[in-house]
Amino acid sequence: MSTAGYKKLINDPFEAVDEALEGFVAAHAELVSLAEPRVVVRRQPAEDKVGLVIGGGSGHEPAFVGYVGRGIADAAACGNVFASPPPNVVLAAIHAAHHGRGVLMAYGNYAGDVMNFGLAAQLAGAEGIDVREIHVSDDVASAPSDESSKRRGIAGDIVVFKCAGAAAEQGFSLDDVERVAIKTNAATRSMGVALSACEVPGSGRPTFELPEGEMEIGMGVHGEPGIKRGPLQPADEVSRALVGAIVADMKPEERGRDVALLVNGLGATAYLDQYILYRGARRALEASGLRVVRSYVGEFITSLEMAGASITVTLLDEELRSLLDAPASTPRFMS
Amino acid sequence: MSTAGYKKLINDPFEAVDEALEGFVAAHAELVSLAEPRVVVRRQPAEDKVGLVIGGGSGHEPAFVGYVGRGIADAAACGNVFASPPPNVVLAAIHAAHHGRGVLMAYGNYAGDVMNFGLAAQLAGAEGIDVREIHVSDDVASAPSDESSKRRGIAGDIVVFKCAGAAAEQGFSLDDVERVAIKTNAATRSMGVALSACEVPGSGRPTFELPEGEMEIGMGVHGEPGIKRGPLQPADEVSRALVGAIVADMKPEERGRDVALLVNGLGATAYLDQYILYRGARRALEASGLRVVRSYVGEFITSLEMAGASITVTLLDEELRSLLDAPASTPRFMS
Repeated sequence: MSTAGYKKLINDPFEAVDEALEGFVAAHAELVSLAEPRVVVRRQPAEDKVGLVIGGGSGHEPAFVGYVGRGIADAAACGNVFASPPPNVVLAAIHAAHHGRGVLMAYGNYAGDVMNFGLAAQLAGAEGIDVREIHVSDDVASAPSDESSKRRGIAGDIVVFKCAGAAAEQGFSLDDVERVAIKTNAATRSMGVALSACEVPGSGRPTFELPEGEMEIGMGVHGEPGIKRGPLQPADEVSRALVGAIVADMKPEERGRDVALLVNGLGATAYLDQYILYRGARRALEASGLRVVRSYVGEFITSLEMAGASITVTLLDEELRSLLDAPASTPRFMS
Repeated sequence: MSTAGYKKLINDPFEAVDEALEGFVAAHAELVSLAEPRVVVRRQPAEDKVGLVIGGGSGHEPAFVGYVGRGIADAAACGNVFASPPPNVVLAAIHAAHHGRGVLMAYGNYAGDVMNFGLAAQLAGAEGIDVREIHVSDDVASAPSDESSKRRGIAGDIVVFKCAGAAAEQGFSLDDVERVAIKTNAATRSMGVALSACEVPGSGRPTFELPEGEMEIGMGVHGEPGIKRGPLQPADEVSRALVGAIVADMKPEERGRDVALLVNGLGATAYLDQYILYRGARRALEASGLRVVRSYVGEFITSLEMAGASITVTLLDEELRSLLDAPASTPRFMS
């Protein structure tokens, strides 16, 4: 594939993450600031609530820094592009988020993140801070249903962050915020389609090879293998395939429920396409007997300039619906 | 150039605009609806205020439909991809927006839009509706300063929409809303850089040719010629060049003022890059003695999957700052 798709507006590739973070906190200075070079925190720290720490590799902007603020996260720990933040960065985020009632850490289920956030949790635990963790695992393409804890986290991250963050903001106990996060993760399923790769700054090559005219269903946001590669299909075929896999993964008693539908652009896919995909996904869900009562369309968790999109469906009950609707004031999610 | 950059998630290319609009109003049904197939209106029509109609070609999403709602526009008239809406569509938008106090139409300064919106204004005038027009002309690359009325409208559209929309929402008279729109347009300058083309659905070819490794400074959002083509430069060089041209266009007495800085991604450029460009633009503005007091970063007006970005600078006074900050509740601009 030509590298023409990877023209970047950056300076030194090895400074890209820090320069983008400097720009980010300057642009959103009324909401966020840097506690240290790779830790974005609320400008006005919260008080007397459970802390929510989120984070992961950079290159997925607006995730994760875009969701720091009132109603969602207290701190985001940022790694290099597509690489987990090291334990000391996560520990600094825990310190910034802890206000005496414990901390929940929510992040996608990737080996590097599980290791580094886990080590930070141990270090914080040794200091007497009660830290819980939720590994978001919404990508149904990445493991079968009876091994759902092995699944990767993709755009379902955002739904878990929002519900857990709203619970924390409303004064829920650490046990209860953890319960909400576990429930939201269990209720949330996603699948994506990749149409092109992207380029990690400085690497000089695409993250994976996908021939012209082809797409890969279920491919992960870093190019992890999907479940089917083939010719690019019309949007309605793609949305039916993604929704079909998501609905097939639901338990029979979960069908017929109210759901939230989130369509996530991976970076280079136009809004025009995203809304066409949303239309198809909504029709496919309704044909399966599910009712779409909350909708989100846009770039929530990207892979730099990758083309493609994912569909996320969350089964709602009264509690989750109310937490989704609760006020949030962050750089990239306002409600 | 390879067509691999133009993989799309659409169905029939000639249905793409209508399918995307169907998805858009379904996703944001609490805020907007379709008055007719190509006219997006507020779900709850406003009363007793000046109406604001915006619009233009499709393919620039989230413009223009994303700014319909409380605090900004009453209606958006949508054309085919990169083509003006015809007069009857614009007239329908005027009818939807008119509540007895007249209508301002704000749109980018393109010949097709000027003709079609102008014809609709005449038709509405014959019905007794007082319709005014502002042709947004912020792109300093498109004509010299002594012919600024010939300039194209690019991301400055959004600033004009926001200020005029807030004025209308606050009950300003039609004369006064028009005055605010003229003032905002005069205070707003932009310039962009294109890194790659895009493909109009169904056309089977890119909108223009830009060799690998090159960029074009000042190129328009539909591929209109810019002022300089050359090798891709680091982001800081690009932001200095764009800000340099914007500041050079200001009158001497305008320097040293407070400004709003908007960085707009054209479609395929990652948030990481957008925030790096923002950082460079802010530094360049501050080195020129301007103070950045309001910031906006993201995709506001795109060109499908084009790579590139633009920088918009608006000189603020107390009135414009207050109008920018006024509440807005639209699918793509919340404040």
